[in-house]
Amino acid sequence: MQILRNIAEVKDFLILNQGKEIGFVPTMGALHAGHESLIKKSVQDNEVSIVSVFVNPTQFLAGEDLEKYPRDEAHDIEVAKAAGATAIFLPDVSQMYPSDISIKAPSALASILEGATRPGHFDGVCTILAKFFNIIRPMRAYFGKKDTQQLIIVQNLVKSLFFDIEIVPCDIIRAGDGLALSSRNSYLDESELIEACKLYRALVKAKALVSAGTFSSDVIKAEMAKVLNPLKIDYIEICDRELNSINQIQIDKSIILIAAYVGKTRLIDNLWL
Amino acid sequence: MQILRNIAEVKDFLILNQGKEIGFVPTMGALHAGHESLIKKSVQDNEVSIVSVFVNPTQFLAGEDLEKYPRDEAHDIEVAKAAGATAIFLPDVSQMYPSDISIKAPSALASILEGATRPGHFDGVCTILAKFFNIIRPMRAYFGKKDTQQLIIVQNLVKSLFFDIEIVPCDIIRAGDGLALSSRNSYLDESELIEACKLYRALVKAKALVSAGTFSSDVIKAEMAKVLNPLKIDYIEICDRELNSINQIQIDKSIILIAAYVGKTRLIDNLWL
Repeated sequence: MQILRNIAEVKDFLILNQGKEIGFVPTMGALHAGHESLIKKSVQDNEVSIVSVFVNPTQFLAGEDLEKYPRDEAHDIEVAKAAGATAIFLPDVSQMYPSDISIKAPSALASILEGATRPGHFDGVCTILAKFFNIIRPMRAYFGKKDTQQLIIVQNLVKSLFFDIEIVPCDIIRAGDGLALSSRNSYLDESELIEACKLYRALVKAKALVSAGTFSSDVIKAEMAKVLNPLKIDYIEICDRELNSINQIQIDKSIILIAAYVGKTRLIDNLWL
Repeated sequence: MQILRNIAEVKDFLILNQGKEIGFVPTMGALHAGHESLIKKSVQDNEVSIVSVFVNPTQFLAGEDLEKYPRDEAHDIEVAKAAGATAIFLPDVSQMYPSDISIKAPSALASILEGATRPGHFDGVCTILAKFFNIIRPMRAYFGKKDTQQLIIVQNLVKSLFFDIEIVPCDIIRAGDGLALSSRNSYLDESELIEACKLYRALVKAKALVSAGTFSSDVIKAEMAKVLNPLKIDYIEICDRELNSINQIQIDKSIILIAAYVGKTRLIDNLWL
């Protein structure tokens, strides 16, 4: 696996691999089994797979965890290599941001859910991805459903700015107890890790209700809130696949999304059904 | 010359021309000899030249001339064809804007000069160009120095979002009396056309002063204002090639820019020296 630290090295790598199908897995590092599954999917689908590791400052709000966000380059290189990546790209901030030009994410999609709590977050996500897409010019890019709103906004970014890239959604990877894997899980202590499973359990509860014939969003949300108790809930939302709020679950057209605090750590999870 | 009216037709055209060097000339139509010179330059440099004609709504501010901006498709097709273009792309607004995702131009460059009078204008310019760049994927794109600030912002756009495109600056084309060609000159009546030449004459005056050893920006600007009198001046600015204001002209590193009103029509002109 090649280790690329600047854009010139990426360009050289791409010239050597001209004509090949390129898969791209953008990450902020702290790679876990969730990222690993994205990389493996890319390796399966493409001749060349490039993983980027970049803790993107513009998608963190003031007061968020930019400084303490977990970083472990040696570990990331290990994981990417083991998963079969052809190259890992680890640029620094000054290279990626020669000016403050930015992308403003689509307002309807970016102002709700995560965007309501983290205004500007998706602008930062779209900006850095547009840069990576132009540098790497992948045929396919891989995104986890864990960040479902991000996935849907990236699909919009690609469609609206006409990037010729297939966005491949990938299933959430969970720990044995159901907790969705996230780099931010490392902030949780032992008792918080147990509490954090309530997000998954609330989604399981919702699924059981739907299976039993309950489709009312209000009823399902109320039952989920009981499971989440006493966690501080940011939102429980039931939407269609374009993130429009819906009153009734429609099978194969719906997403249930949660954001909640476990101690000081804000976690998200969701279920497509 | 092929006439392309939607993105699918452009994609088909590009597949047929795969591997060829593509030059791109983005325009808002009402093609004049200025555009013609850009197209001819592209035809000279590239195997394939694509001209776009699109009056981009997002670069007009409320109250500006979006509605009355001159449109003459038959004429534009004629001019592009005569200049040797391989294809002309005439999309409609709904195709180009599937969502309100947008690009925010670099703030320092986009808030001065034209940006001070037309806030948001360059955001619209960057947004539509990013879309065209991704659809057409040209090797080179051609921009007139007439819109010098636009040219410099587009260079920044390409550098900061990592578009692999060479931006080719092209000289201003002037009428016999020196008036820089512009689609908006069509708003001028006969007496205004005569008044409008004062912009060019003020630049000639500046050049003469510099040739005679006057380098002070303040002195030059004052003399230019006299030539422009009684036109309403929006700005006279003397900058370096990154649009930083300078107190002293430096040969081969400076630009003098003017915006002034002739009647109700706002005109711009500039001189690189």
